Amino acid sequence: MPQNRRFLLQRRPDGEPVPEDFELVTEETPQLADGQFLIRNHYASLDPAMRGWMDAGGNYMPPVPLGDAMRASTIGVVEESKAEGFEKGQWVMGLNALEDYSISMVGGFTQPIDPSLVPEITNYLSIFGAVGMTAYFGFLEVCEPKEGETVLVTGAAGAVGSLVGQLAKIHGCRVVGIAGGPEKCARLTEKYGFDAAIDYKGKDESALTEAIAQACPKGVDVIFENVGGAILDAGLMNLNLYARVGLCGLISEYNTEAVGARNLWNLIVTRSSIRGLLVMDFVERFPEGAAKMGEWAASHGLTIDEHVDEGLEGAYDSFMRLFAGSNDGKMILKIA
Amino acid sequence: MPQNRRFLLQRRPDGEPVPEDFELVTEETPQLADGQFLIRNHYASLDPAMRGWMDAGGNYMPPVPLGDAMRASTIGVVEESKAEGFEKGQWVMGLNALEDYSISMVGGFTQPIDPSLVPEITNYLSIFGAVGMTAYFGFLEVCEPKEGETVLVTGAAGAVGSLVGQLAKIHGCRVVGIAGGPEKCARLTEKYGFDAAIDYKGKDESALTEAIAQACPKGVDVIFENVGGAILDAGLMNLNLYARVGLCGLISEYNTEAVGARNLWNLIVTRSSIRGLLVMDFVERFPEGAAKMGEWAASHGLTIDEHVDEGLEGAYDSFMRLFAGSNDGKMILKIA
Repeated sequence: MPQNRRFLLQRRPDGEPVPEDFELVTEETPQLADGQFLIRNHYASLDPAMRGWMDAGGNYMPPVPLGDAMRASTIGVVEESKAEGFEKGQWVMGLNALEDYSISMVGGFTQPIDPSLVPEITNYLSIFGAVGMTAYFGFLEVCEPKEGETVLVTGAAGAVGSLVGQLAKIHGCRVVGIAGGPEKCARLTEKYGFDAAIDYKGKDESALTEAIAQACPKGVDVIFENVGGAILDAGLMNLNLYARVGLCGLISEYNTEAVGARNLWNLIVTRSSIRGLLVMDFVERFPEGAAKMGEWAASHGLTIDEHVDEGLEGAYDSFMRLFAGSNDGKMILKIA
Repeated sequence: MPQNRRFLLQRRPDGEPVPEDFELVTEETPQLADGQFLIRNHYASLDPAMRGWMDAGGNYMPPVPLGDAMRASTIGVVEESKAEGFEKGQWVMGLNALEDYSISMVGGFTQPIDPSLVPEITNYLSIFGAVGMTAYFGFLEVCEPKEGETVLVTGAAGAVGSLVGQLAKIHGCRVVGIAGGPEKCARLTEKYGFDAAIDYKGKDESALTEAIAQACPKGVDVIFENVGGAILDAGLMNLNLYARVGLCGLISEYNTEAVGARNLWNLIVTRSSIRGLLVMDFVERFPEGAAKMGEWAASHGLTIDEHVDEGLEGAYDSFMRLFAGSNDGKMILKIA
């Protein structure tokens, strides 16, 4: 069996993860048992939710055990198989780990994928993967946008946010995105078709509130929230009556103590709601979502940027881009 | 026309209201114009929402103008009338002010009431008024409780909270209330039929979280939230999957800078929602709600405590009881 470089979680981060919380080691790959197969990982998805999996409490998944490789969605090729339905050379996608080789089994989270159905194999980690399905089901089903409504997307230049903005345009909404820095803001309007972009950098809550009011003269009917903190609070101040806030993430709070949402009282004034959303709830409907996303990719040029960094040895730096906002699109780590 | 003692808002409170923000003055009652009628106010409802009406921004209503009498729901008797349908001697209820006499008009917010339909005329300000309708529609329609579910009520010894707890029992739920101090907690279980009571005093968020977990061994399916701050945060940590938080009030935050909800991330983990509720949305269905509350008052002994203070001259002290928690039931001011 081949040598296996594995990116281990060695210590639970206290706030922002530091390099010493992890270790890249080389181990022997264990022999396969019956029903198992070995995957040569080619790409891994790096997602904000992974920060939660590092904590002792876990979130919607159990925590990654200390000393184990960091859990991640990967795509790769079956290298050896003692499992029916998984042949050597077949492309697969699944919840594996940041490592050269992962062992999976029939009935696990790993499924075959067909490279001929997508322009790039990495699209399975973006537009046709959890990211694309989060945008599709989280926005369309949880936020229930209607034609002519105004949609505010935070973390709008991110993988999910940029897709939500495009879906909002396809559904006849005015869409305003919040992102960090002039380059990302330019990307929102020029590439993804947002009607307006707001640069949150250098703006306090009051300035953000005013900027949203100017960009959304008819108020905000839907917020697709990825960030939290002052950005969420500023959005709450601009809600129309009976507005819907789809809570997808709170990336501003994952590494620090939460500052907390201080403007919840405006939910009462506007009779609006905040609803937490998790793509897992829609797993059985992924084929429907992927088909629709494929249609819109063809008919409307629906697109997602992918930011591919190379090398397991840079896994820490690549993961931390998500919190610094220095990635330009869906963050993907090329392993081989 | 009679002399009119009026409790004026003279300055917008900065945080907690102080006596100097108000002034009790005596003015002449103006002559009635055609279509108007004069009400001798007997009772006024004192409600946390009035704090919001004192601020320049207002909330779901415009702010009370400086120098005007403080807006309040009152019940009283028509003293003189130049309005069709309002006869001298008739009992009425409406949105008037803290003053001996109010002038209203046809088509305003004042409606005739029938004292023979209720045990006490003040019940029109409690169980059959906005408070009762908030509990009825806010809990049953917004929170959608199901038989066998666990309901957590904060501010549970308050006017709305104590009714919500009783409605939850009528609907077959396990209901746990949070209140301040042993006396209020005893009232919850002994008088209103709550299954358990938690005294929030002396407990930080972590201790509250643990106390809720112990009182709700199957988790929390519905929160009826009146308080906010650490109490809301502790509730959020105990949510079951797909739980509903009905946001009725945030009384802990009305006089101070909000500390903010720091555990919204658990809405994502549990795919739960927070929805703001305002009884105004259900005005057209009040007759339906009042009829049901009357039925349950008879069949289940549904009850509400009323805390009646006497005298316009004590309006400030009586209003501040709402924030100190020193009222035992729906806060009502007897004017005459």
